[in-house]
Amino acid sequence: MTERLDKALPRHPFDDDKLREECGVFGIFGSKDAAPHTALGLHALQHRGQESAGILSFDGQTFHIHRALGLVGDNFSENSVISRLKGHAAIGHVRYSTAGGTILRNVQPLFAELSSGGFGICHNGNLTNAGLLRKQLVKRGAIFQSTSDTEVIIHLMATSSYSTFLDRFIDALRQLEGAYSLVAITPKGLIGVRDPLGVRPLVLGQLEDGVQILSSETCALDIIGAKYVRDVQPGEIVNITRKGITSMSPFPRLKPRPCIFEHVYFSRPDSFVDQKNVYGVRKRIGAELAAEAPAKADLVVAVPDSGNPAAIGYAQAAKLPFEMGIIRNHYVGRTFIEPTDHIRHLGVKLKHNANAGQLKGKSVILVDDSIVRGTTSVKIIDMVRNAGAKEVHMRIASPAITHSCFYGVDTPNREELLASRMDVDKMAGYIGADSLAFVSMDGLYRAVVGDARNNASPQYCDACFSGEYPTSLSDLAEGDEPRQLSLISIKIQ
Amino acid sequence: MTERLDKALPRHPFDDDKLREECGVFGIFGSKDAAPHTALGLHALQHRGQESAGILSFDGQTFHIHRALGLVGDNFSENSVISRLKGHAAIGHVRYSTAGGTILRNVQPLFAELSSGGFGICHNGNLTNAGLLRKQLVKRGAIFQSTSDTEVIIHLMATSSYSTFLDRFIDALRQLEGAYSLVAITPKGLIGVRDPLGVRPLVLGQLEDGVQILSSETCALDIIGAKYVRDVQPGEIVNITRKGITSMSPFPRLKPRPCIFEHVYFSRPDSFVDQKNVYGVRKRIGAELAAEAPAKADLVVAVPDSGNPAAIGYAQAAKLPFEMGIIRNHYVGRTFIEPTDHIRHLGVKLKHNANAGQLKGKSVILVDDSIVRGTTSVKIIDMVRNAGAKEVHMRIASPAITHSCFYGVDTPNREELLASRMDVDKMAGYIGADSLAFVSMDGLYRAVVGDARNNASPQYCDACFSGEYPTSLSDLAEGDEPRQLSLISIKIQ
Amino acid sequence: MTERLDKALPRHPFDDDKLREECGVFGIFGSKDAAPHTALGLHALQHRGQESAGILSFDGQTFHIHRALGLVGDNFSENSVISRLKGHAAIGHVRYSTAGGTILRNVQPLFAELSSGGFGICHNGNLTNAGLLRKQLVKRGAIFQSTSDTEVIIHLMATSSYSTFLDRFIDALRQLEGAYSLVAITPKGLIGVRDPLGVRPLVLGQLEDGVQILSSETCALDIIGAKYVRDVQPGEIVNITRKGITSMSPFPRLKPRPCIFEHVYFSRPDSFVDQKNVYGVRKRIGAELAAEAPAKADLVVAVPDSGNPAAIGYAQAAKLPFEMGIIRNHYVGRTFIEPTDHIRHLGVKLKHNANAGQLKGKSVILVDDSIVRGTTSVKIIDMVRNAGAKEVHMRIASPAITHSCFYGVDTPNREELLASRMDVDKMAGYIGADSLAFVSMDGLYRAVVGDARNNASPQYCDACFSGEYPTSLSDLAEGDEPRQLSLISIKIQ
Amino acid sequence: MTERLDKALPRHPFDDDKLREECGVFGIFGSKDAAPHTALGLHALQHRGQESAGILSFDGQTFHIHRALGLVGDNFSENSVISRLKGHAAIGHVRYSTAGGTILRNVQPLFAELSSGGFGICHNGNLTNAGLLRKQLVKRGAIFQSTSDTEVIIHLMATSSYSTFLDRFIDALRQLEGAYSLVAITPKGLIGVRDPLGVRPLVLGQLEDGVQILSSETCALDIIGAKYVRDVQPGEIVNITRKGITSMSPFPRLKPRPCIFEHVYFSRPDSFVDQKNVYGVRKRIGAELAAEAPAKADLVVAVPDSGNPAAIGYAQAAKLPFEMGIIRNHYVGRTFIEPTDHIRHLGVKLKHNANAGQLKGKSVILVDDSIVRGTTSVKIIDMVRNAGAKEVHMRIASPAITHSCFYGVDTPNREELLASRMDVDKMAGYIGADSLAFVSMDGLYRAVVGDARNNASPQYCDACFSGEYPTSLSDLAEGDEPRQLSLISIKIQ
Repeated sequence: MTERLDKALPRHPFDDDKLREECGVFGIFGSKDAAPHTALGLHALQHRGQESAGILSFDGQTFHIHRALGLVGDNFSENSVISRLKGHAAIGHVRYSTAGGTILRNVQPLFAELSSGGFGICHNGNLTNAGLLRKQLVKRGAIFQSTSDTEVIIHLMATSSYSTFLDRFIDALRQLEGAYSLVAITPKGLIGVRDPLGVRPLVLGQLEDGVQILSSETCALDIIGAKYVRDVQPGEIVNITRKGITSMSPFPRLKPRPCIFEHVYFSRPDSFVDQKNVYGVRKRIGAELAAEAPAKADLVVAVPDSGNPAAIGYAQAAKLPFEMGIIRNHYVGRTFIEPTDHIRHLGVKLKHNANAGQLKGKSVILVDDSIVRGTTSVKIIDMVRNAGAKEVHMRIASPAITHSCFYGVDTPNREELLASRMDVDKMAGYIGADSLAFVSMDGLYRAVVGDARNNASPQYCDACFSGEYPTSLSDLAEGDEPRQLSLISIKIQ
Repeated sequence: MTERLDKALPRHPFDDDKLREECGVFGIFGSKDAAPHTALGLHALQHRGQESAGILSFDGQTFHIHRALGLVGDNFSENSVISRLKGHAAIGHVRYSTAGGTILRNVQPLFAELSSGGFGICHNGNLTNAGLLRKQLVKRGAIFQSTSDTEVIIHLMATSSYSTFLDRFIDALRQLEGAYSLVAITPKGLIGVRDPLGVRPLVLGQLEDGVQILSSETCALDIIGAKYVRDVQPGEIVNITRKGITSMSPFPRLKPRPCIFEHVYFSRPDSFVDQKNVYGVRKRIGAELAAEAPAKADLVVAVPDSGNPAAIGYAQAAKLPFEMGIIRNHYVGRTFIEPTDHIRHLGVKLKHNANAGQLKGKSVILVDDSIVRGTTSVKIIDMVRNAGAKEVHMRIASPAITHSCFYGVDTPNREELLASRMDVDKMAGYIGADSLAFVSMDGLYRAVVGDARNNASPQYCDACFSGEYPTSLSDLAEGDEPRQLSLISIKIQ
Repeated sequence: MTERLDKALPRHPFDDDKLREECGVFGIFGSKDAAPHTALGLHALQHRGQESAGILSFDGQTFHIHRALGLVGDNFSENSVISRLKGHAAIGHVRYSTAGGTILRNVQPLFAELSSGGFGICHNGNLTNAGLLRKQLVKRGAIFQSTSDTEVIIHLMATSSYSTFLDRFIDALRQLEGAYSLVAITPKGLIGVRDPLGVRPLVLGQLEDGVQILSSETCALDIIGAKYVRDVQPGEIVNITRKGITSMSPFPRLKPRPCIFEHVYFSRPDSFVDQKNVYGVRKRIGAELAAEAPAKADLVVAVPDSGNPAAIGYAQAAKLPFEMGIIRNHYVGRTFIEPTDHIRHLGVKLKHNANAGQLKGKSVILVDDSIVRGTTSVKIIDMVRNAGAKEVHMRIASPAITHSCFYGVDTPNREELLASRMDVDKMAGYIGADSLAFVSMDGLYRAVVGDARNNASPQYCDACFSGEYPTSLSDLAEGDEPRQLSLISIKIQ
Repeated sequence: MTERLDKALPRHPFDDDKLREECGVFGIFGSKDAAPHTALGLHALQHRGQESAGILSFDGQTFHIHRALGLVGDNFSENSVISRLKGHAAIGHVRYSTAGGTILRNVQPLFAELSSGGFGICHNGNLTNAGLLRKQLVKRGAIFQSTSDTEVIIHLMATSSYSTFLDRFIDALRQLEGAYSLVAITPKGLIGVRDPLGVRPLVLGQLEDGVQILSSETCALDIIGAKYVRDVQPGEIVNITRKGITSMSPFPRLKPRPCIFEHVYFSRPDSFVDQKNVYGVRKRIGAELAAEAPAKADLVVAVPDSGNPAAIGYAQAAKLPFEMGIIRNHYVGRTFIEPTDHIRHLGVKLKHNANAGQLKGKSVILVDDSIVRGTTSVKIIDMVRNAGAKEVHMRIASPAITHSCFYGVDTPNREELLASRMDVDKMAGYIGADSLAFVSMDGLYRAVVGDARNNASPQYCDACFSGEYPTSLSDLAEGDEPRQLSLISIKIQ
């Protein structure tokens, strides 16, 4: 048994060119089945991170933790594991990490014995001043176990001059910049936090018997039969103990800027984000797109599965038939054979196959949720044409992505983003489409909140489309990456 | 290393109540990339069997074999495996076995050193006189390695008085009853066989450079960029060598009876079965169903993914909106936590969640491909109602399944089949639907071949609906199961 | 899970230049603890084969088998394994295979369902006409599962025209040439066989409660507290059932030729072989050597552990102190780092270190049991000199090995044997000894049976020293190796 | 991949009743083969700890670490592992932990990124005030990763107000109580430390090309062909950099008290401890024992392997033959079958078997190195008698063990020590010996340093025999065990 990676990771070489949400969090208090409920909740949040999963439970005396690389259903399936995660309270985490950072030490929940007792934490988001804080903490004698930005929060707590968990936690949070939805566990109970801008989502739920739940999305409430209560508010701290729930807002009040991409792609279509059904929002984006960018065609086809709702919305608005012109193979293993030159062009077909019986001789409107590097679009359109499609009109259910995200999303560098290098016409040529259109920024906002961007409330974080970042980016400004020094200084093989 | 099962199998306790195709086969001759092409082909056929996979290649001198439990993409992903499967010819197999028989020795391809040289075989189907033949062979001194019916074929060949591979093979095949699409490999080349009734499919394909391919479905041709040439005919033997393809029909000519369930559920929607696009057939079944069993409703929802094409066909015919009212979670691991009493009712939600935003207050037409035991239907309808649906009208895109299949499909015993125990009204009550309808047998045949059953050509094998078995069932008639004796006599732990 | 080798084998690159016994066998009948007793017995026989182990038990109705690569203590340690090997009768096997043949299919016990019922077998020895028999059997339609010579016996039984197990077994045995001590299990009981020459040992033991045991050596009786009853005689078949033990001798009577190397090296020093305590025999060989080849020296040192008894015998006879001048490291893992040029010369030190405190400035008599290739002797003597020894006189407690063994021992080809290429003086120079002497053939016989070779009874098989093989070597005479054809024709990766 | 224990540990239920050294350390600087040399060195030190092993290397820029449960030869055998441990400097550790503490996080080397750079450390010994220090550190905000006492040193360094590695290290060391031989690595070089009493050994060695080595024992120098230079002195810090070796003694000077049990049992017989050949010392203990406690007998037998040198010394002094009356089985696997009642008495035979051929009818002097609980002695003597020995006179080559060790040795609680509960006569009866004698304390000192205890120089730590502990035992005095709180508060499953 070693700490190195024994398993190939779930990424395969024919990646599907998406932005990647980096995490999902879940917490529960007061349940006889805290750990199995958490496992089910994480399973429902699996789309937010497939690389690793972890659960930390507390049984009134002892904390129990299990963390593993791989899917929830592969690692928390054995009764022997679940039954050892005893207790009435638990927190859990699924994670999709950026390359290089995939080591077991980074897998959350993180846990530490503080002088006030055990403390565990799960984080969705990304701190933009973690490098600076880490540097200062190491100077003061802190020893980091991981390369994760989240560990900064624990060290800030450990060295805080306050005495209670909550006071130390607030003391730590006030020093943070960036995006964070947190679920924390102490011997006293559960704590939920959403950063002042509310970039990443966090909802509060309840089981009929008064059990309290925190989750990134409502779909994790559905799977355990819990009721949605309300969103945790931007800048709010929710403290759940045996005595009930208390709420506080210890941060300076800011105008909320939740992430609009949760609606475009990250969240599951059956979730409610900002109390809006994501599937419905995506259908409305499709309808806006149909109005803004119509095309003469025989049928509307989605790039499955993420393009489905917008394609149905587009088809209904355009009064065209929606057909499954591309069939998805759901049995993709962890990796796949490295292609020889001879078979390299087959790439995209591992996941998708054109349904030639529906495409032959037809003009097709092809709807996808977004274009990142454009690599998959090239292959999909090529495959659709080879199956006999006469014309391919590509329609994208989001504006063009031109900027990187620094708030907990795995984005390529700016220069790799297709839309930062080309205008729409050039992009159409590059991907091989007869025409290409993105929904406008106003169209997107109309679909989400019913009004154009300038009038919208809330005004979402749309930095990936607009470049308008709602926080300062301190680590980036620093120029060097102080954390890199320690990142390269040890390899746990 | 032992021969016992180290990994949990891909079945989870909340099974989705489907009939299961037990196998997919693939073969290729003349390719520089015989093994990687076979791995890709098997990946495309993965829906026909997820429990194990195997590839056997021949390099002109030596046979190479790799067989494993689990998915193709998990077991043939390493270059070290693929690169050792050298040669210009290969056969491969994916398998879904019935309970009890999942041991590595049963995983195909099977291989034996005959006096005429090495011989490997892959089988889709099931022999109905394998028990009798096995008994006779053991009496004559044959030693069986597996509990699989397919091994009978190899022993019949080994003890045949003929001398060439082909003559021995035909000698063996003539003694078989039941369903078999076979792909075999010898030092001379590749052999494809379809039983005289043509119960299971087998197609012939070609890569541009003259490489010959045999496959259960056309979707495996698509993934490697091969062209469909033609179906192997019922009762035909196709012999592929360096000199080209020769065809023979050494069996008594019978009226073909291909399996109609390939159209209903088994085959992938993008495949062409009997030269018909399966997606198109399923849409037409949906349209027949809309005509035969209309309902007043707000929208049409599929039980994903298998119900999708019929639901779209129904919606278009009924001029109702098709909506994704049920969202599927694609990240189901190998198994999942054994539910405690407290959370047992959550079962179906591991795979499906109701999209409440679309269902609340609506009358819903719910389309599924078939009902086997009815266990999943109960849970799905309950889930849809809990999400707020006002009415649920269940529509099934196949006739009622009343009989077991003995031709290579995993069916429950007759008494477990819901439709063998209840009429449609009782079934509607049992599953909790406001109304329930199955497509008629004539409606199904119209959708598939354009005419009612009695006029249809071919007349498919529809024994699961009609009880009319096209072959004798010798082992069943025998009363006892001679093979059971040896099945229990050794356990490879 | 695949059939290929996942673990590195227990051989490491700094092999210790010994002949290797290829197998140990054990059987028990009538015990409530048949499987745990067999596991303990195999553990005591572990020195006869470290590469794989297997146990087959019978519970009156069902056979249970577990076979694994690796040590007994690593594979039969879990209660979950042992408790599944139910029954009152069991046979077991440890195996050291020659390179290339290490595949799980070859691991014994072998088992087959014959028409008369289940039959399992364990074999110590090697058949010298297995290739010929296999060829004939394959021609008649037999399909072999393994590349092991032992499987020939099973196929001969399966195709025998006799009806009872025992008659079929005798029918099969009569066709065999070579060396075989066999332990077989049937639904009726246990059968023990020793070939007419009695090349390999087999003893009969008893637990106080009447439980019968068969074992390669008496040390396996000791570990379970059983009593030694008698040796199974050359050419004898012992049949153990509920009714008791019966004995028969269905083979033509030959003069016995047991293997003399069991005394030299193969058997454990605490075993009694041919009713002689092996440790005592080895001490007497040392004493003969002291008389035949004295040397002026300060102390006697053994190459541990196999050289210890002869060194003690030498020291006592020569009235010199016996000292542990070489210390053995018992923690050798499965393999070890592949040495770079820089550290390649360290090889032998992984296992042995010179005890410089005892060697410095001393004249040393160094006693080893045998010399095969001489590779280890070179390194040991070099190490002893580097530790400060003034003179090194090498004394070998067996005659010079000049011929290969074909009776179940892993010997290098003749040309690799040092003594087949050089006379004693050249060998002394090659290994770097000040003097070198082997015990004479008569000295060896005197130590074992108290008389010179020509008068000895029995006259042992000493072919490795004399080249006088007591059986014909049919497969060797054939010129080609028919089995090779099938060996290379399939690779289970 | 999880952090829990996947493998059974190397302890088996029939433990051999020894005190256990808890660690061995090794370090090398300036070698092209730093990691393979360290692996070889650790292999030679394997007897000091078989539970886990780790190596940390530094390549001038980056630290590389690999740590694993199990033997060195099982975990550092692959070239892929060794070749990734790049660099010219490395430290390594083998460990035998007490029950409960076997978790991967405790496996050494420990590593931390301090503000001054990376720092790794290996520890042999035990700190007697670690609990107190840990408590204080946690109060100041330190977050511990492990439950190991060694981590205290790292946190003391991290929070030290000094600036260089060396000054911080000395600052930390001055706060420690107890036993510690340390090998540490920094970007600058290697540091070796021995506590002021010099309880645990540490030697300095050199390869011909000027490469510097630190090791627990000289046998690790032998295996890589290095020369012994000198012992690191009690209270000395050795600083090895590119510029050479510097030495300092920053602690108050105390009278050294090295552990005398290194001579009795811990060290390998081929090592030189305090410049004395351990084999020679043990032979002299045997001779003292022969003089102090003679017995009329036919032969002298050792409990192998640890009793061998003293038995040879006894036999030579008593002019009796030394015989191998007990044979050891070297193939003990990781664990073994849990004995049923029926076979529980077989225990000791897994490892030892009586050589009945030598014992029958004889009076035997049986020599062992020590008695701890006495459990094995009972079984060994019973086994020897069952093999036919007439009389058994037990002679122990150390004084009676009456007290626990707190300096890095795994000792049972005092009440479990046989000699703390009985006098010698009662012990003889309990273990079933005809007579029993221990060497006297003066006899032991005479054998080790040539003079009685009161005149001896150095006066060793003999607390396990005398109860005279050379340091204060602060954590013990505290009464409660503060570390236990955190020990139970998290379980990495």
